Amino acid sequence: MEIVKKLRKFGEEIYSDLMNGRFPVVKIPDRSTKNIKYDRRRREYVLGKRVLRRSTKNVAHLRSFTQLVWIAYFTKQLIEAGKTSTLRDVFYSSQAYQVPFKDQKESNEIVMDLEAILNTPREEFNIIPEERSSIFGDLTVEFTLPGYEGRRINLTSHPDGLMIGHALRTADFIETSAERVFVIEKGGIFTRFIEEGVHKRYKAILINTMGQAPRSTRYLIRRLNKELGLPVYIFTDADPWGVHISMVIISGSANSAHIRELATPDAKWIGVWATDIEKYRLPYDRLSDMDVKRLLELKNDIRYQNSFWQGQINKFLEIKKKSEQEAFAKYGLTFIVDKYLRDKMEQVSTL
Amino acid sequence: MEIVKKLRKFGEEIYSDLMNGRFPVVKIPDRSTKNIKYDRRRREYVLGKRVLRRSTKNVAHLRSFTQLVWIAYFTKQLIEAGKTSTLRDVFYSSQAYQVPFKDQKESNEIVMDLEAILNTPREEFNIIPEERSSIFGDLTVEFTLPGYEGRRINLTSHPDGLMIGHALRTADFIETSAERVFVIEKGGIFTRFIEEGVHKRYKAILINTMGQAPRSTRYLIRRLNKELGLPVYIFTDADPWGVHISMVIISGSANSAHIRELATPDAKWIGVWATDIEKYRLPYDRLSDMDVKRLLELKNDIRYQNSFWQGQINKFLEIKKKSEQEAFAKYGLTFIVDKYLRDKMEQVSTL
Repeated sequence: MEIVKKLRKFGEEIYSDLMNGRFPVVKIPDRSTKNIKYDRRRREYVLGKRVLRRSTKNVAHLRSFTQLVWIAYFTKQLIEAGKTSTLRDVFYSSQAYQVPFKDQKESNEIVMDLEAILNTPREEFNIIPEERSSIFGDLTVEFTLPGYEGRRINLTSHPDGLMIGHALRTADFIETSAERVFVIEKGGIFTRFIEEGVHKRYKAILINTMGQAPRSTRYLIRRLNKELGLPVYIFTDADPWGVHISMVIISGSANSAHIRELATPDAKWIGVWATDIEKYRLPYDRLSDMDVKRLLELKNDIRYQNSFWQGQINKFLEIKKKSEQEAFAKYGLTFIVDKYLRDKMEQVSTL
Repeated sequence: MEIVKKLRKFGEEIYSDLMNGRFPVVKIPDRSTKNIKYDRRRREYVLGKRVLRRSTKNVAHLRSFTQLVWIAYFTKQLIEAGKTSTLRDVFYSSQAYQVPFKDQKESNEIVMDLEAILNTPREEFNIIPEERSSIFGDLTVEFTLPGYEGRRINLTSHPDGLMIGHALRTADFIETSAERVFVIEKGGIFTRFIEEGVHKRYKAILINTMGQAPRSTRYLIRRLNKELGLPVYIFTDADPWGVHISMVIISGSANSAHIRELATPDAKWIGVWATDIEKYRLPYDRLSDMDVKRLLELKNDIRYQNSFWQGQINKFLEIKKKSEQEAFAKYGLTFIVDKYLRDKMEQVSTL
């Protein structure tokens, strides 16, 4: 596997230094904010050219160097045993090896160093987060997970949805009649879409992110877009938090600037827009001070520098209102699908 | 359906009053704390005999009476249309009918009044919460959900787990080789159990509650216990929050004292116990002030009045430590299954 090769190469360089009587050194892309840049061509955050040298010649570096080598060793063991682990497990496991970490924050940082060195998300070396997202729609996948290789499932098999975890993240896509993907912030609306047959009416795969999309979910959304060529439409509450859930799916986060393949730059935020609050006369709440503060941050964020995003942010600030996706229930439970979604899909070509 | 009959009866009594020239009156079991009692025989919270009369003769009652009748009407519409709704949707939907609710808190209260009157959880009248729990194990179910009637799925089909929502809650159990149920507080450990094949080694159905178990999950756990006769074992962190996650599954919550069929009195908390922290020399954190305060509350809670629970609470207070399930990774990732779970299953007959 690609990742095992990368880990082996990482180890071989250290061995080679030792065999040749040199103090081993590793070079780690600098993940600090001053080295995070927005790449306009790729339309996502990336790291700049700054690199940190961690040398065993320097006593102050020895501790973190040792930790890094242990993490690399541990992940190789994980992959070869076909097991996964959480960041929390990594921290506790270190105690089995008497590798000292002050706390989980310290072990997390070293895992991210390894991600940066290998330019590979930690899910690839089997350190996976707890998931909460789910998926539903006509897509047949074939698992590659040890013990489940070759088993297939169609993602309409369970009407409550299937979890998006390690098995689905790494499954092969076999067959689909879907023509688009709808990404939804909330479980209630996800359920509504299934009930109203949106997956059939719009030939859509539905994804419920339950708030900010976890990394495996962002990775899977990107795969649906890149491998199957499906356009992705994101549907959130009309508030700064919903706006930013969309943006992280589209352009990635500064936190993951050191790894590629989590962003979907062609995904579109289709609502609920600030302008929809007025257009559909939605029930609303007043923006809180925190909402306004967050909007002003987004206004200055490099990812929001075009007329569409600036227009929506300014509209929020002007009307001082926010609305939830559920607010459409004012017009009956099915309005959100029968009217709103249809309106949006008609406009889509102009987005 | 049973629930439609109950709703019809509720409406007919109001009609009958009106036709006979009487002011309609409804009697609502009092859900206030002074009417909540612990039933030692049932081993769960129930309501006492106090009943509130809401009469249309009293101008102060007219508003809430109207709201209640509207909620009953709305839920009957939902059921007949085969649709579901969230509490949030109910609040917004009321605006379509010009039924005034001050805020969602007010509409939630009226939904709970209807639950108490009909002695039926709101899921039965299709008002369902957002779910986050998942399930995995050898159980074949057949859906009864409109549009999916008769479709079957085996709950090992997707190794990341299947969501526990309305469809699974209402599915029929068809076939299983399982002999027990393990309920787990955290996704990371749920995934570990699947990876280590606990479902095969222990013939177990695995449930991930992701913290406090949602109502549909508690209902499903009870069904697995009552309908299939499977013993239920709960596995949480060793802290007051984990303890109480177990207790709510076992004995229900005061909040849902007005409805039956959410508790599983024969379920057992198998760990991580306070005594396990010492026995297995687990990595630990110090109890915070809030942890201690919570433990003292639990110590006085009627559900905890036996020597097992009091012993565990006292042990926490004595050692002033808490540990997470992941702490077993100190002994390697599989120790929790290979050693700890085996130890526990050997002790089970003595619980």
